[in-house]
Amino acid sequence: MRNILVIGIGAGNPDHVTIEAIEALNRADVLFIPDKGEEKAALRHLREAICARFIRKPGYRSVPVTIPRRAEAGDDYPGVVDDWHARIAASYRGLFESELAEGETGALLVWGDPALYDSTLRIMERVAASGLDLDWQVYPGISSVQVLAARHRIPLNTIGAPILITTGRRLAAGFPVDQDSVVVMLDGEQAFAKIAPDGLDIFWGAYLGTADEILLAGPLAQTLAEITRVRAEARARHGWIMDTYLLRRRVAA
Amino acid sequence: MRNILVIGIGAGNPDHVTIEAIEALNRADVLFIPDKGEEKAALRHLREAICARFIRKPGYRSVPVTIPRRAEAGDDYPGVVDDWHARIAASYRGLFESELAEGETGALLVWGDPALYDSTLRIMERVAASGLDLDWQVYPGISSVQVLAARHRIPLNTIGAPILITTGRRLAAGFPVDQDSVVVMLDGEQAFAKIAPDGLDIFWGAYLGTADEILLAGPLAQTLAEITRVRAEARARHGWIMDTYLLRRRVAA
Repeated sequence: MRNILVIGIGAGNPDHVTIEAIEALNRADVLFIPDKGEEKAALRHLREAICARFIRKPGYRSVPVTIPRRAEAGDDYPGVVDDWHARIAASYRGLFESELAEGETGALLVWGDPALYDSTLRIMERVAASGLDLDWQVYPGISSVQVLAARHRIPLNTIGAPILITTGRRLAAGFPVDQDSVVVMLDGEQAFAKIAPDGLDIFWGAYLGTADEILLAGPLAQTLAEITRVRAEARARHGWIMDTYLLRRRVAA
Repeated sequence: MRNILVIGIGAGNPDHVTIEAIEALNRADVLFIPDKGEEKAALRHLREAICARFIRKPGYRSVPVTIPRRAEAGDDYPGVVDDWHARIAASYRGLFESELAEGETGALLVWGDPALYDSTLRIMERVAASGLDLDWQVYPGISSVQVLAARHRIPLNTIGAPILITTGRRLAAGFPVDQDSVVVMLDGEQAFAKIAPDGLDIFWGAYLGTADEILLAGPLAQTLAEITRVRAEARARHGWIMDTYLLRRRVAA
C-alpha cells in the first residue's frame, strides 16, 4: 500500500503552518508539486520557502505533477469538471505508481485548507476508486478566510447567526436576503460591484498572509470604487491576484 | 498603551497550533486565562499542556479571569448577551489595568479560531471603546470544523457550491431548502435528530483533535440513533461534550 499526506500549508504566510503540518512534511518520502502552468512564480516561491524552512531532511525529493487544463465550462459545468478531475486523477495515479514504492509516503501540499474550495480530496477518492491500493490522511491549514478575519480583527459571524461561504459567481445573483454575513471566495469578476450595496459593509483582503497583503474595509457603497481601483492596480503590478472578502449587513443603529 | 494578543490555539490538539501562535504565546508578558466556572478540567489540562509545551520562557505569568455567568436568555437574547459582554469587558479592563504596565503585552487564548462563534473580539472592541488605550492583534487557529473535515477526509463544499455554517438552534427550524452543505456548531440539543433526515448524510465528530475523538458518518436516517446513543454515553463518561457536524444533501445517483 502507498500512503499520501494531504497537507494544508496556509494561505501564504509560512508562520501559519501548524506543528502537525510540519511533521507531515517531514514524514513524506516524495513531495508531489502540482504544476498548473498558470501558477505564478510568487506562489511557487512561497511554497518553496515553506518546504526549505520546515523540511529538516536535506535533499527531499519533489516531483512535478502536470495538471491538465480544464476545458471551457460552457453549458455543462459539472460534466466538464468531472472530465477534468478524471484526467487529473489519472495523472496522479501514474505518478504514485512510478514514483512511490510500496510502503512509501507521498505528500500533496494544498494552499489554505483542503476542506475549502479545493478538489484534492475528490481527486484522492478517484485515484483510490481506480483500484490503486492507497491510504491517505488530511492535515488542516489556515485558510485565507481566517487570515481575512484575523487581519480585520472581526468575527465572521454576528452573535448566534449563520455564516454563508460562497463564490463570486453565486454572489453576482444578489446578496442573499436571509443572510447577514457572507464570505466570498473565487471571485474573479468583482461580484461585490454588481450587487445592491446599500446597507452592506465589506471587509476585503488580497494576497492575505503575504508581504503584499492589502486590506480595505467600509460601507460597500462608499468603498467599492476604491477596492475596484486598488485591485486592478495590484493585479497589473503583480500579474495575478487572489482576494477574498466578507460582506455584512449593517445593523440599524 | 497596552497590547493584547488574541491567539487561536486550535480545537484541542497541541499539534494544530501554528508557528505564528507559538511566537505570539512567547511574546506575552501575561496570559489571561478565562475561568468560566463550568469549564471542564479536561479543557484546562489541554490548555496548560499547550502552554507548557510551547512557551519557552520559564515561569510565565498567568492571571485567571472570572467570567460572569450569563443570565437566562428568555425573550431578550440580544439584550442579555449585550449585558453579559459589558460585564465581561469590565472584568477584562480591570485586569488589563491592574496586571499590565504601560507598554506590556497580554495574551488571550481562544479555542479554535477567534473568528468563529467566539466573542473575544467583540469584548476587545468594548474594552477599547471604554477609553483604555489599547491595541490588539489576532492570530487565526485551526477550528473544530476544519478538524472535522480533515478527519472525515471530505471537503466542506460540493463543487462550486456554498457552505452554510450555523447553530443547532437555527438548524432545529429545518434543513435550509436552498443549501446542500450545512455545518452545525453549538448544538447542545441534537438538532440533527429534529429535522427531516431523508436525503441527508451526516459527518459527525466529538472531542475533535483530542485523544477522545469520536467520528461517525452515514445517511442521517440510519445514523442518527447511533450518534444520539454514542453522544449520550460519551457525555456521561466525560461529564461534558463538544461536537460539530456537517449535513450534506445526497446527490441522486
